[in-house]
Amino acid sequence: MEVAPAVCLLLLASVSLLTTVHSGKVLVFPVDGSHWVNMNLIIQGLHARGHEVTVVRTATSWYVKESVPHYTSLTITLPEAISIEKEDFFVTFLVKMLAIKKEGGSPMAFVSFYWEMLGALSKIHQQASMVGVQMLEDKTLMQKLRDTQYDVVLIDPGLPVGVLVAHELGLPTVFNVRWITSGEGHFVVAPSPTSYVPTSGMVLSDKMTFLQRIRNTLQYGLNTFIDKFVVCPVYDRLVEKYFGSSLNFYHMLQAADIWLMRVDYVFEFPRPTMPNIVYIGGFQCKPSSPLPSELEDFVQSSGDHGFILMSLGTLVKGLPKEITSEIAAAFAQLPQKVIWRHAGERPDNLGNNTLLLKWLPQNDLLGHPKIKAFVSHGGTNGIYESIYHGVPVIGVPLLFDQPENVLRLEVRGAAIVLDVTRITTESFLDAVRKVVNEPVYRNNMKRLSGLHRDRPMHPLDTALFWIEFVMRNKGAAHLRTESYKMPWYSYYPIDVFCFLTGLVLLLTVVFVKTVKFLCCRIFGKRKPKQE
Amino acid sequence: MEVAPAVCLLLLASVSLLTTVHSGKVLVFPVDGSHWVNMNLIIQGLHARGHEVTVVRTATSWYVKESVPHYTSLTITLPEAISIEKEDFFVTFLVKMLAIKKEGGSPMAFVSFYWEMLGALSKIHQQASMVGVQMLEDKTLMQKLRDTQYDVVLIDPGLPVGVLVAHELGLPTVFNVRWITSGEGHFVVAPSPTSYVPTSGMVLSDKMTFLQRIRNTLQYGLNTFIDKFVVCPVYDRLVEKYFGSSLNFYHMLQAADIWLMRVDYVFEFPRPTMPNIVYIGGFQCKPSSPLPSELEDFVQSSGDHGFILMSLGTLVKGLPKEITSEIAAAFAQLPQKVIWRHAGERPDNLGNNTLLLKWLPQNDLLGHPKIKAFVSHGGTNGIYESIYHGVPVIGVPLLFDQPENVLRLEVRGAAIVLDVTRITTESFLDAVRKVVNEPVYRNNMKRLSGLHRDRPMHPLDTALFWIEFVMRNKGAAHLRTESYKMPWYSYYPIDVFCFLTGLVLLLTVVFVKTVKFLCCRIFGKRKPKQE
Repeated sequence: MEVAPAVCLLLLASVSLLTTVHSGKVLVFPVDGSHWVNMNLIIQGLHARGHEVTVVRTATSWYVKESVPHYTSLTITLPEAISIEKEDFFVTFLVKMLAIKKEGGSPMAFVSFYWEMLGALSKIHQQASMVGVQMLEDKTLMQKLRDTQYDVVLIDPGLPVGVLVAHELGLPTVFNVRWITSGEGHFVVAPSPTSYVPTSGMVLSDKMTFLQRIRNTLQYGLNTFIDKFVVCPVYDRLVEKYFGSSLNFYHMLQAADIWLMRVDYVFEFPRPTMPNIVYIGGFQCKPSSPLPSELEDFVQSSGDHGFILMSLGTLVKGLPKEITSEIAAAFAQLPQKVIWRHAGERPDNLGNNTLLLKWLPQNDLLGHPKIKAFVSHGGTNGIYESIYHGVPVIGVPLLFDQPENVLRLEVRGAAIVLDVTRITTESFLDAVRKVVNEPVYRNNMKRLSGLHRDRPMHPLDTALFWIEFVMRNKGAAHLRTESYKMPWYSYYPIDVFCFLTGLVLLLTVVFVKTVKFLCCRIFGKRKPKQE
Repeated sequence: MEVAPAVCLLLLASVSLLTTVHSGKVLVFPVDGSHWVNMNLIIQGLHARGHEVTVVRTATSWYVKESVPHYTSLTITLPEAISIEKEDFFVTFLVKMLAIKKEGGSPMAFVSFYWEMLGALSKIHQQASMVGVQMLEDKTLMQKLRDTQYDVVLIDPGLPVGVLVAHELGLPTVFNVRWITSGEGHFVVAPSPTSYVPTSGMVLSDKMTFLQRIRNTLQYGLNTFIDKFVVCPVYDRLVEKYFGSSLNFYHMLQAADIWLMRVDYVFEFPRPTMPNIVYIGGFQCKPSSPLPSELEDFVQSSGDHGFILMSLGTLVKGLPKEITSEIAAAFAQLPQKVIWRHAGERPDNLGNNTLLLKWLPQNDLLGHPKIKAFVSHGGTNGIYESIYHGVPVIGVPLLFDQPENVLRLEVRGAAIVLDVTRITTESFLDAVRKVVNEPVYRNNMKRLSGLHRDRPMHPLDTALFWIEFVMRNKGAAHLRTESYKMPWYSYYPIDVFCFLTGLVLLLTVVFVKTVKFLCCRIFGKRKPKQE
């Protein structure tokens, strides 16, 4: 069987079926930071297709610019008291967690850290909810939004305040989502059996031991608890204030028309899904462009050995010095060249082969033919870019979903994962040498890359199609179950179970009593005679 | 917002991503009857894209021809003793069921009929399984199939014997499916909460009362029982004989790579699904062609009143005479013309406006601008064609899934459903007049039609893409959960539940005992003093 790229006969028949929307209007509620990178791409796509996009941002927004050609912004100014400073917040957070982990971490230390984390989570959501308050209280603004006649509200429900505004405006919603309130998006909208679906926060695969399944179930309970008692109450207060007590916020999340899920199954473990979940994982990926000449010269100077790329993302400036020293020492011993994104203090023991940069064209480097491996913290964007380009990974996860992300590559044999608190020169060197020199890692990643690219449509086109679908059809109610409106004891059919169990018991009792009664009547009279 | 057909920018970016397979080889196990109409379309598509297709048929096949340009056939001759005569079988079946229903149907009559139906089901599967026996016993044939080096086995698992042959050949499988063994395909592979997913055999929507949910749950149990004790044992005997006792047939069904599901959510109620389920509902639909001139003349003679189409499918020649008389009398009173597919006895009271035909170009008539309504038994093909062309339906369901199918249009306000055993001239006339004259039925069907056609790809192209995907990638394991391999008590986490409940009980007992012990020590000594 010969496999070859070819003219796409398949799609020709489809072109005539497709309709597009002219001059639609989209209201966007993004999440700042790395999430914005994704949302901005979709906004650029919508703009290119002739839609008018309005982006809601706060005055202290980190990445979401006020004035950009491809969208209009709507800036909300929040009371300063509760604003969160980006870098301080995450660096403090990381340093604390690394310290607890390194010290072996007593259960009490973890509980106290977890408690602090919940406080931070609640604080972040409170800040986000203030955007809703400011908007809903501003009658002039709301009237202006109503008059604009938006067609759809596009929301990153990591901070889901846009759902309240969409409800007030009576507009259909599309989610651009992986994380929602306190966990992964699927858990809000699709059945998630804990027997084979690893819960958010658990670094587990879909094949678990008995003890792992117990931990997974307990974590599921914990996540549900956080949703119910930490995150949703923040928004439920607004729901009650503005829409009355007959609604609850969790149901408003479940009512979203389309979930554009930033997931692909070369990465995620197969799990139940729903008809209104559309997979767009890797929609940000694109072929690489040529490197700037000085970077290209550096890369070419690596000869046949090639080069290694290291980046730990944008949220964290750099690792503590004792860790970077170990890593620098390891890099210095490699025949490869190394390009390292590092904004912190320069390690003293840096090798001649290692180039430190504060910013680098990650996608272009990952797509370069001379790249051998990618040392990554495991942020979703970087993971999908490495899958797209087929570059094996050495995972150094730090925070949030990063340990879960790199695990997904590790179980597919496409990555080696290191514990950042236990990194030594030897362990780091060993991992990098294995990934670079043993073909199995690269081959596995190439296989994932092939599967990921083998799609009938580019995932960005898929995302744009479904946003326009919702605009054209004023929602997608036919794809969305309304089972969430059922009482929980009917959804999990406890009422039916109790009724049927009761019935069986009743019938058994009646049967036994009848048999006893008959026995008494028949044998009860005879027995005395026999005696 | 202006909505208009437009050049499909979306898809241009995708073309370069797509690869195709040249001269792939596909082994097909179809199901005869109306299922073959669907499968044959996919085979034509595969042939047109350069693949060699071999179709396994029996010597007594009704529809699957031996010699056709677009496929090679492999004919299996079965012992005559167990062959089922098509027309006798289904007509006898229908007549019996109608008789029971008409007589009011005592529970015992239904049980006895149901028992007979189970016997027939078992007989059909035994015949199908014999195809497997004949093939697996024929070592020369199996060696020839191995030597041919097929890339994929395409199976309609309504009669799933092909799964055994695919297993023996070690080939990936694609299902073209709506019905499998004893129920709808989703029930084998996706979570199916009985609280809002109507079970096969239940004429229920996704919004059920408490009593309906009880019936739905009981039917779910019954279907599971039939799978376990009537259908699967037929194949499990072969599995044990040819592959050993460590496998079971149900798991082999669950291991299919891709499920091309003949379902679309304008028709089906939204329900949980899985990543390896691909929806191709309505893939047989296409624009209408011009009618033969005499039929066009007849249709045109209807003037502004338009015409009504009636067809009860291919399995049943015609209804009993007393019913057709009532229908004929109703038709005679309409200002519309009527085209009626009817192979049985001609009713005496047929009106001048009614044309009886033994065969008719259904799709071309449904796509004709003068059509007003479709009187249909509710076979899937006809239902999808009526959705595609936006023609409202008067449903007269007879057998199998037909009552469930027409219910799905009825709850969307696009059909009126009649009980065939209770049809009178008045009730039939009333239903037809309502559907023809009240715009709500046509408007609802037009809305469904719009949603159904609003797709990024034609569903036939989707089907071909995924078959080739499996050929290119030698399966689709990354989309398929292997959770079915878990023991049932782990899948439904009963072991975890028992452990956690046990733990809580143990801790409670220890706590209570400790408190009691301490109380006794502290207060137990004091009390006597107080006395």
